[in-house]
Parts: sequence; structure tokens; C-alpha cells
Amino acid sequence: MIGIDWGTTSFRAFRIARDGTIRDRRSSPRGIMNVPDARFGDTLREEIGPWLALGEDRVLLSGMIGSRQGWKEAPYLPCPAAPADIAAALTDIAFEWAQVKLVPGLSGSDAQGVAEVMRGEEAQIVGVPTLMESGGIACLPGTHSKWARVEGGRIVSFTTHMTGEVFAALRGHTILGRTMRDGPSAGAPFEAGVRRAAEPGGLLHHIFGVRAQTLTGALAETDAAAYLSGILIGHEVSAALAGAAGAVVHVIGNPDLAALYATAIAACGGYAERHDGEAAALGLFRIGEHAAWR
Amino acid sequence: MIGIDWGTTSFRAFRIARDGTIRDRRSSPRGIMNVPDARFGDTLREEIGPWLALGEDRVLLSGMIGSRQGWKEAPYLPCPAAPADIAAALTDIAFEWAQVKLVPGLSGSDAQGVAEVMRGEEAQIVGVPTLMESGGIACLPGTHSKWARVEGGRIVSFTTHMTGEVFAALRGHTILGRTMRDGPSAGAPFEAGVRRAAEPGGLLHHIFGVRAQTLTGALAETDAAAYLSGILIGHEVSAALAGAAGAVVHVIGNPDLAALYATAIAACGGYAERHDGEAAALGLFRIGEHAAWR
Repeated sequence: MIGIDWGTTSFRAFRIARDGTIRDRRSSPRGIMNVPDARFGDTLREEIGPWLALGEDRVLLSGMIGSRQGWKEAPYLPCPAAPADIAAALTDIAFEWAQVKLVPGLSGSDAQGVAEVMRGEEAQIVGVPTLMESGGIACLPGTHSKWARVEGGRIVSFTTHMTGEVFAALRGHTILGRTMRDGPSAGAPFEAGVRRAAEPGGLLHHIFGVRAQTLTGALAETDAAAYLSGILIGHEVSAALAGAAGAVVHVIGNPDLAALYATAIAACGGYAERHDGEAAALGLFRIGEHAAWR
Repeated sequence: MIGIDWGTTSFRAFRIARDGTIRDRRSSPRGIMNVPDARFGDTLREEIGPWLALGEDRVLLSGMIGSRQGWKEAPYLPCPAAPADIAAALTDIAFEWAQVKLVPGLSGSDAQGVAEVMRGEEAQIVGVPTLMESGGIACLPGTHSKWARVEGGRIVSFTTHMTGEVFAALRGHTILGRTMRDGPSAGAPFEAGVRRAAEPGGLLHHIFGVRAQTLTGALAETDAAAYLSGILIGHEVSAALAGAAGAVVHVIGNPDLAALYATAIAACGGYAERHDGEAAALGLFRIGEHAAWR
């Protein structure tokens, strides 16, 4: 089968063998925002045509391709949801060259009943075997980071943190960005930001310290962005891990960002296990096993 | 004497009698950013010329006019600082038509030793008599909100919270702004945001709820900005008031914003006393009483 994580800005496809191993992979910047005139079918054929020619006939898509802005809207499936539940809620898409199905996003609510949605992360979570078998916590860092709980082979609940988008807005559109220059994103300044997040004062106070300390020379302009990143990720992790000290957190995402989160998780008393974004391939395979193919 | 609160975007002048009462006032949008070619002397004469003609000869300026981007840089005075300390640290400015002096800003550090600065707020704090006589907490809401402690007639420490600037950045430059339409800034949605801030989950999670709840219809687009404002102000107030439940907080600023903060302070277990920005007039008068005029 072919599994595709088709997001807003990127397209990542995997050709997957019957035993779940990845036979081939390709990626391109043709996320749904970069597909002109909604020509999703043409784009798909161009990207995976060689694999179709090899006889592949089953294609499963996850991510924003199933949103209102994508190819066709796949309604959210409410939590809790196991791979078989997700497979029972796939949306078929007409495509001349293969069977194509869309994975639904998941909906839920946080502990206080506030609505939550995800689209694409569910395939990555399902693709971490130890998590699905033993349960636990998943963290998917990014523009809108997701933290999910898995119990009994089902994704039972999740929350979203706007950490990545807030970082970009603060850096690009507040006084904090004016005294920042490019520098390493990891290392001592990041760790100092994580420690700062654990102190009293609150996030809105802590971030002002980026500017105050740059002005007094206590913080180098090339270290300011990493320090700000540490403050924000530190606040996210400590809120998400509250009451779960000692927990194992499965961090799924690009290796650089996952390493930063692992540092913050350790500082908050948790244990991080890292997985790269290719978890999506195995997740799509697991969902595909339960799907009603022709 | 004449006291002037000369900030980044506004100019507010007070003609003050010998007993400290305000005889006359004027304001204009000629903040330092709106004074072309650094013609501060000409601007000052145009604004207060009629008062100088009445024989006023003593002019005290506070605010960003004393910054590097202003008329002349007035070095920060370290905390703790009483009105007499501030008066002993004034910076003289050459001006043909009257004696003109600049109030220094204050510097300090928060409980963890992180640097802090203020410029202009010190004159407003000094202008609240009950605070200077009995001590207590001052809150000056705004782009960069300040919280200060006064003891024994001196400003002893203060912290900055980037609440107003973060609100503008989130509304203008993140996904949250896309589904916001103009609506009232106070009332039930603001109060719901303040309550939300008191729940677990953290600020970076709470703000995502603005979007999630707008999408599900639980929050009207015209209420979303007030709800976001309540979340941010609620987080600021609860962090600033941590460990000081039952405290009286003197809120100094424009009446609409002060009312919002009073609501959040009450929700966090404090008691708000409100003062308008004209506190700056009495503060400049108090500092002026100790100054070395010719």
C-alpha cells in the first residue's frame, strides 16, 4: 500500500510492504497550500505515478488534505479511537488510477470540556507500537503542538498548545525580535529558558526578560531566540506534564525539535522517547490493515 | 509648575497649582515617535507656550522623552527609590523659555535577579498618596504592564508583563485573529477568559481554545477578542498576585482597561482600587517639590 502524510506545506509518501516496512519514500513541498487550483488528483498522480505503475492500488491519505481547504472534507471522528475505528471512518475519493481513502481527523475535549481537533497527528501516534500496546503519553511538537493520551490501544484525549506559532509571532511582530540575531537553537541558552519557565512570575513576565537581559548585556543577541524558545517550550511541557512526573513521553517529530522537547521533558521530571515523523508510515499501514479495500 | 507625561505615542501636560491640584490640562498625539527631526524643544514650546506666558517657569518631564530615542537620555535610577531620590537624579535640559528637567526611569530586578526597567510609570506610582503613605501593590496595565511594590514611601521592586503587546501580536499575526470580529471588550466573554486562565493546561493551551471554540460555535466571533484578552490578563494577574491573596492592588491607567484588570484581580482574590492616568500629575508635583529649581 501507499501511505501519504499530506499537510499544509509538505507532502510525504511511503510505499509500504505487506509486513509494514517502508520500501520507498518520497517527499516534496507540494502541501495543500502549494497545489494550484486544487489539482490534488493530478498532483497525486505526478508524485506516485511510478509506484502505481508497479501495481500499488491502495492509497491512504492523512493530514490537512482531508480538511475543508483540502481535496475533500473528512469529518472528524470523536475520541476515543483505535486504528480499527479510524479505518471504519475513512472517506473514499474518486481517483482513476487507484483506490484512495482519507483518514478522518480526531475531535475531543480537554479535561475542562473545551473542544479540540487534530488532523494528521493521529496517524503518527498510531504508528508508535509501544505506545499503542502499553499506553502512555505522546507529544507532537510543532506550530500547534499536540499532547495525546493513549489507553487500551485507543487515543482517548489530547490537547493543543500554540507554542510554535506564538514563538513566530513574538519573534516577528514584537519588540523581542528587534534585538535577536541568528544563532544556535539548542544548548545553554535554550536550557536557561527552560529553567526560567520553572520559576514564578508567569510566561508573560518571563518573555519580557528576553528583552531586558539583552539590553543589559546578560543575554547575547545570538542567544535570545534560543532562550525565548526554551521559555515557551518549558511552559508548554510543564503544563502538559503537570501531575504526571516520572511519565514516559513519546516525542514524535523532526529530530532537532524532538531533541529540544526531550531536554525540557527531562527538566520537568519526565522521560522522553524519541520517534521521527516516519511513524506516520507505520500508522497509515496499521489503519490500512483494517480498511475495507475492494 | 508644569508636569508632562511624554510617552511614545502621546503627550499629556498638566499645569499644577502650589497645593498640587490640576489647574489646566492638555493632551496631543505628539509622542516622541510623532515628533519629526527630534524637534522636541519646538514641540514643547508650541504645546505649553500659553502657560509659559502666564509665568510658569518649572517644567518636569517623565516617560520615553528621557530615553535614548527621546530628547536626552536620563540614566535609570536603581530601586528602591523615594520621590526625593528621584528628584535628586533629574537631568537638566537646555530650553530658552523655562527650566526643564527629566525624571529618570527606574531599574531593578525581579525576585530571581532578572533585570527590569521602567520609564514613566514611576511618576504615576508616586502620584497615588495612599500607596506612598501605606505601601502596597501598584498595577499599571498596558502594552508592557508593570506591577510594583511600594514600602516605606519607596518603590522597592517591580516586574513587567508583555500582556498588551502579546495580545496585539496574537490577534494580528496568528490564526486566532482570522476568526475574530469587532465586539465589546468587557462582559461575559472577558470573564470567561479570566476563569479559563485559572484552570490547568497553561497559557499556550488556553489560547488555542479561542480558535477551537470559535470553530465549534461555542464562542461567537465577536466575543473571541474579549475572551482572549481575559485569558491573557487572567494569567498576568494570577502570576503577579501569587502568594498575595487578599492584597489591595492600586490599578493606575485608562478607565476601560483598569476596569478589566479590576475584574481579574477580584477573580484572583485581590481587591482593586482604581486611579486614572492623571496620577502622573500629582506624582510629578511630588517629585518637583524635592527638586533643585533655580
